[in-house]
Amino acid sequence: LVLVLDFGSQTAQLIARRIRDLNVFCQLVRHDISAERVKELAPRGIILSGGPASVYGEKAPKCDPEIFNLGIPVLGICYGMQLTCQALGGVVRAGTTREFGRTELTTLEDHPLVAGLPATSTVWMSHGDQVQQAGDEFIPIASTHSCPMAAVRHRSRQIFGLQFHPEVTHSEYGKQLLENFLRKCCGCAGTWQIESLIEQQVTAIRARVGNSRVICGLSGGVDSSVVAALLYKAIGSQLSCIFVDNGLLRKGECEKVRERFQNHFKTDLHVVDASHRFLSELAGVVDPQQKRKIIGRVFIEVFRKEAESITDARFLAQGTLYPDVIESGGSPDGPAATIKYHHNVGGLPEQLGFELIEPLRDLFKDEVRRMGLALGLSEELIWRHPFPGPGLGVRCLGGITSERLHALREADAIVLEELRKAGLYRTIQQAFAVILPVQSVGVMGDGRTYEETIAVRAVTTDDFMTADWYPLPYDLMRIISTRIINEVRGVNRVVYDISSKPPSTIEWE
Amino acid sequence: LVLVLDFGSQTAQLIARRIRDLNVFCQLVRHDISAERVKELAPRGIILSGGPASVYGEKAPKCDPEIFNLGIPVLGICYGMQLTCQALGGVVRAGTTREFGRTELTTLEDHPLVAGLPATSTVWMSHGDQVQQAGDEFIPIASTHSCPMAAVRHRSRQIFGLQFHPEVTHSEYGKQLLENFLRKCCGCAGTWQIESLIEQQVTAIRARVGNSRVICGLSGGVDSSVVAALLYKAIGSQLSCIFVDNGLLRKGECEKVRERFQNHFKTDLHVVDASHRFLSELAGVVDPQQKRKIIGRVFIEVFRKEAESITDARFLAQGTLYPDVIESGGSPDGPAATIKYHHNVGGLPEQLGFELIEPLRDLFKDEVRRMGLALGLSEELIWRHPFPGPGLGVRCLGGITSERLHALREADAIVLEELRKAGLYRTIQQAFAVILPVQSVGVMGDGRTYEETIAVRAVTTDDFMTADWYPLPYDLMRIISTRIINEVRGVNRVVYDISSKPPSTIEWE
Repeated sequence: LVLVLDFGSQTAQLIARRIRDLNVFCQLVRHDISAERVKELAPRGIILSGGPASVYGEKAPKCDPEIFNLGIPVLGICYGMQLTCQALGGVVRAGTTREFGRTELTTLEDHPLVAGLPATSTVWMSHGDQVQQAGDEFIPIASTHSCPMAAVRHRSRQIFGLQFHPEVTHSEYGKQLLENFLRKCCGCAGTWQIESLIEQQVTAIRARVGNSRVICGLSGGVDSSVVAALLYKAIGSQLSCIFVDNGLLRKGECEKVRERFQNHFKTDLHVVDASHRFLSELAGVVDPQQKRKIIGRVFIEVFRKEAESITDARFLAQGTLYPDVIESGGSPDGPAATIKYHHNVGGLPEQLGFELIEPLRDLFKDEVRRMGLALGLSEELIWRHPFPGPGLGVRCLGGITSERLHALREADAIVLEELRKAGLYRTIQQAFAVILPVQSVGVMGDGRTYEETIAVRAVTTDDFMTADWYPLPYDLMRIISTRIINEVRGVNRVVYDISSKPPSTIEWE
Repeated sequence: LVLVLDFGSQTAQLIARRIRDLNVFCQLVRHDISAERVKELAPRGIILSGGPASVYGEKAPKCDPEIFNLGIPVLGICYGMQLTCQALGGVVRAGTTREFGRTELTTLEDHPLVAGLPATSTVWMSHGDQVQQAGDEFIPIASTHSCPMAAVRHRSRQIFGLQFHPEVTHSEYGKQLLENFLRKCCGCAGTWQIESLIEQQVTAIRARVGNSRVICGLSGGVDSSVVAALLYKAIGSQLSCIFVDNGLLRKGECEKVRERFQNHFKTDLHVVDASHRFLSELAGVVDPQQKRKIIGRVFIEVFRKEAESITDARFLAQGTLYPDVIESGGSPDGPAATIKYHHNVGGLPEQLGFELIEPLRDLFKDEVRRMGLALGLSEELIWRHPFPGPGLGVRCLGGITSERLHALREADAIVLEELRKAGLYRTIQQAFAVILPVQSVGVMGDGRTYEETIAVRAVTTDDFMTADWYPLPYDLMRIISTRIINEVRGVNRVVYDISSKPPSTIEWE
């Protein structure tokens, strides 16, 4: 285990992912984690991330200085380096020039941290302050034109600093540097793997569950499917899956879940067709917040009823991921900066009185995908675009009726089918149709039509926090538009959403 | 004058335009026009157009057979040829093969009709039936592989037939053939020109109007502007123009009308600001038909009141065009097939008790444009995209308020400005923004927004009866979308309309 102290969420998460890619297990923790707690966790190394603050700022986030005295190797990056040097008697000042972007790094010393680096290489800088040569606590091992102490080591302890960002791909030998720190300074073997994690989780789940029954709620998506597959591997027939058909699913979704978890994995699958209940509760509701609330409430009611019918169940398994845990502040050591709540975290299990099993809570999304593939789930499922919890309910603007849902479902299926045919499904991270309660005039044969509009959305994104609309080939736009208008009753117009996030969002409601 | 007997509107209109392009004046008339009436009109030639029927069909449209006995040269094209030959004793039968598309024509005789044609050339065919060699009334002058009588002449009279379509551009020497018929067979000089038409109209208007005052309603569009400019040339200060600002105009429209008809042409311009009246009558109205009715009614009321204040006026001038006259059956000789009513034809003048002046009623749109340029109107106006009578009222879906109109007007101005900048304004025949009463979620800064959507429409079309959405360059889509969302308050999403007409329409309401 390696700990990454988080001084600025984006850069810290990136460091964590790089470390895991090097097959070393790591966790992100609050920047102010106590040395006490670190000692308990007993990591092989500690990394202090960069961050937007200046160490001389009034509210500059600090770390417990005692962590430098635990004998655990430390690597400070950018802000983390400045903090480290400051804590150990160095001097940090605003550089004569602020430095942003690519610059050339020159190695000064033949140290294990820079093993394998050529005499000069490109690194990526982004800082105003920098560490000044002062005293002899820190010895430079690499420099750039305007930053004599671009990489430093403590004169006696296993403590290092990098002024540049090894975690970004613009730093040519960044990965090598991180690997050097982990292998040569911390002594990590680099044997952590998805397969070993699966084995580890299977053992842990078996030990914890014993002879009890576990309920797993399936959504049709990647995360809950991976959880179910993992549990099935661990406890087989002790697993019961519940899938609620809320009438707001995509075309064929329910059949796919049956195929996967009844035919392929032979789990005790409970499919609850609650579509009539959902639709009658949603009748006449137009306000999106209201819709979401109703869908959420009815889901819990339906799910609870079904779960209660499974009399011997003690545990509930959920597909909570690492970023959800971090962002919701759900981990005792997690960074406290963000306060966003995720639907997977909290809520349901407490109300139902189950003990919670969250076997993915240490994993990033790409690790979940790797795990799913290793567990035998299909590529199609693993690369399925995200689908919101309230389903088509938030894509059926205006009043929800079964006719409008039917039209939306058909249009949506056409969009996805054509994207797959064009080989673009994986290039695009999320694509779907939205039905708009806007009637416009059309002509069919000799008559006038007065029908609704379908909006098509297709975006590319790295993290779903920002997103660009995808420039679909014009021919594909034409095919999608023509097919929807010809094949979907009640629709006579198709528009393509050309708004980016921000200031728009990916979903419409 | 040459008459074109209409057996199928599209092809007949195309023939008429080709003839006018050859500087010969011509008019489209009903296929069953009496020989009596033709004699009155005294044309130099008669052309029978093609059409979708078979001469043996039950409801096959016929012409008065007496027109062949008037001594006026006749050219029958496709269906018109079959009808001509049948009327004069020839035999028409279904050919052994139906023929569609390009085929090779071989000239058989050195006749004036085919003067200038090479031995073989390409022509465009589209027929099932064809004229069979029978008797000796008709003599072939050209043939194709499967049609021995592709071009014929009557053995004694100036009567001709072409089985192919000389009016389509796919027929290589089609224009030459039509020109041969007009010049060599009918003796037309080909001196008809826009400038001579202007002179002719100016003289006619002066003669008719005398010392009276003429009112011309300006819409801001091409047709009414050309009428006003023509009248100004004819009668100068006897012209009064009325422009009603209904509050549903594009950005800057009113200023442009003032600039044009007050500063450039110094007409007696009455600008009536009735925007408050329109908006208050439209308040709360959502139904598009209702909106149109209110806008139409209030317009007439406002216009009438202003017109009545111009006490000495006797005439009202309108920009009715030739296709409007044909389509509305407004001409006594016009084809009766279509029944669509145009807002320019009928209605207003009868109610106001004025005599009507329609100086453009013999012209096609491109001829009106040429006339406008010759009269000194700007390129910008002449190539202005069409704008519907009810204005932004039919592009402001849902309830009309001044806030929503303001947003729409700004968005619309951005669309047009960016199209002009990109040099695409004339490539595209119609482009505009529509505001949709659909609120969707967005993010701006730290907050959520919940605002409306703008749809952008840009189409290419030959005749506005069919239209394709234009594949705007992706960068341009991006610029337009970003500018609208950033600059227009109350809008956080932009979509691009990717629907063709049919089955959609160009406008949304």
